[in-house]
Amino acid sequence: MPRVVPVVLTGYGNVGKAFVRLLLQKRESVEARYGLVIDLKAVLRRGGGWALEADSLGALSVQSTDPLDGRPGWRAGLSLADVLARGGRTGVLADCTPSNLKTGEPQLAFFHAALDSGWHVAAASKGALCVDFKNLAAKSRAKGLALKFSGATAAALPTLDVATVSLAGAEILGIDGILTGTTNYILGRLEERLTFDAALKEAQARGIAEPDPAMDIDGWDTAVKILLLANSAAGLDLSLGDIRVEGIRNVSADRLAGARAAGKAVKLLGRLTKNESVVQVEVGPREIDPSHPLFGVNGTSKGVSFFTDSMGQVTVTGGKSDPRGTAAAMLKDVINIFRN
Amino acid sequence: MPRVVPVVLTGYGNVGKAFVRLLLQKRESVEARYGLVIDLKAVLRRGGGWALEADSLGALSVQSTDPLDGRPGWRAGLSLADVLARGGRTGVLADCTPSNLKTGEPQLAFFHAALDSGWHVAAASKGALCVDFKNLAAKSRAKGLALKFSGATAAALPTLDVATVSLAGAEILGIDGILTGTTNYILGRLEERLTFDAALKEAQARGIAEPDPAMDIDGWDTAVKILLLANSAAGLDLSLGDIRVEGIRNVSADRLAGARAAGKAVKLLGRLTKNESVVQVEVGPREIDPSHPLFGVNGTSKGVSFFTDSMGQVTVTGGKSDPRGTAAAMLKDVINIFRN
Repeated sequence: MPRVVPVVLTGYGNVGKAFVRLLLQKRESVEARYGLVIDLKAVLRRGGGWALEADSLGALSVQSTDPLDGRPGWRAGLSLADVLARGGRTGVLADCTPSNLKTGEPQLAFFHAALDSGWHVAAASKGALCVDFKNLAAKSRAKGLALKFSGATAAALPTLDVATVSLAGAEILGIDGILTGTTNYILGRLEERLTFDAALKEAQARGIAEPDPAMDIDGWDTAVKILLLANSAAGLDLSLGDIRVEGIRNVSADRLAGARAAGKAVKLLGRLTKNESVVQVEVGPREIDPSHPLFGVNGTSKGVSFFTDSMGQVTVTGGKSDPRGTAAAMLKDVINIFRN
Repeated sequence: MPRVVPVVLTGYGNVGKAFVRLLLQKRESVEARYGLVIDLKAVLRRGGGWALEADSLGALSVQSTDPLDGRPGWRAGLSLADVLARGGRTGVLADCTPSNLKTGEPQLAFFHAALDSGWHVAAASKGALCVDFKNLAAKSRAKGLALKFSGATAAALPTLDVATVSLAGAEILGIDGILTGTTNYILGRLEERLTFDAALKEAQARGIAEPDPAMDIDGWDTAVKILLLANSAAGLDLSLGDIRVEGIRNVSADRLAGARAAGKAVKLLGRLTKNESVVQVEVGPREIDPSHPLFGVNGTSKGVSFFTDSMGQVTVTGGKSDPRGTAAAMLKDVINIFRN
């Protein structure tokens, strides 16, 4: 007998749409491989949402680019509280609402409401996790619920799974991560002697950089990801304010030329180091040698290296970072919460 | 309250000794991080074993290179059946007995006995899994027990975890793996124009190649690993006989020179390809481009790339492949079976 997994999706931008499309596409394979039937009960966005009936996925059109486009059943003002109040089995809140790194809203209230109602959380958003990780983690632990956020820590590149599952029992002595595709791309173009402005414009024209690129360029996207890795995988309790963050705006042509002449590459690294019991987390452009496992991670690619006591170094690279890859990371979390 | 996890270790060669040392070293951190107390109840090897009392780990010497060296309590003829017959809680059989790829013994009988007694299995040995994977997997599933074998599939390099946990929900369309450090090292030296015999002798002198190197050189070590990945991660039911296997003995200097001239590298790949519904698994030396994610995996390093539908390609490299790394992979499996 397949197990029915109720899911509520909060956020319906590019990632949310990709998530619904993925659920539609993966319906049969998820049931066949994992014995799970994902029952999307509601999709909520600013101002309201769609409450979906049983077997809702089957009724959604696979053809449309936006699976909910033109679908009747939009209810203005429908809220997560309304949906959770209906009761029923424990499910998963899949969240991809926009992140505010200062307030953690809107998802912070959602996560607490979900956990308080006995629901698991699978997040692609970063804000609430940045602002209130310790409390959220403690609450989920106390209630025996999962708090997963693969989609928030480098999309389809597996970072948290590797740190927590694949390296179980090993002590993580250090982490180096190229965690933002945009900055890695721009650094590569600077290396090829473009000016910073030209490289940024090109990245924006190609859809690699956001119209407002500050979050990436100034290192904050990397900072959030290394923070979440540090807090969850290395058991720390840091805030963004504890991390020294430098972006790539001031990487000079001279510095790049010097690195090149020495056979090195400059990469924007999120870095965790442990010396004795002193742990430091920082973000900044760093020279790395050809022997560094991330040396060959170029273009928009990402990668993360874990340095451990008993397993040596383990490096993961790749993973789609588009909305579909992020949606796939959320689906993975949902599956891993409920599979045997 | 920590949870006590009974463990029986079968096999007490280099990996078994490293496993006991690791348990001793990790005793406190495993309890603190995972709430688990590993209770090593017995260590069995050819001809008998040590039956250990409660809190046995604490009583073993941490100083000795061989933790059981000189320890009283050796019982000639002590068998796994004796230990399992004592009853008690469900535990894990951690097996690192030598592998016979034709018979699967001695571990094949051990695995069935353990599963029949309601025990989980964490294997570093390959024989039984090669010979009888389908039955073992079916039996463990039917009984709700874990059959894990990270240590058999590239030691501390996470291959199975990534395929099954990190890529959950994604369809694996292909796998390329550099799964044997010895052959990768020798190919690198051939690339540097050593003869095959000289490169092999050097690898043996440096402890990289076995005194009898055929298993590695002729591709069988890689074949076993890609077979286990194919059967478990891609849900196939193949035997070694279904895989076309070519080793590196006949890689000519001309071929290497040609690859080099074309900017390529020759790597011994275990490869799974899927075209429509036709799946093919093979082992052989293959030319790869600089754009291939395994291009930079040199020396004794290993790596594996998974090509998927929804997550793009994900590549893992690194991971200690010495006895300690293999032991760490077994410990990881034990932890992941019992952690919440």
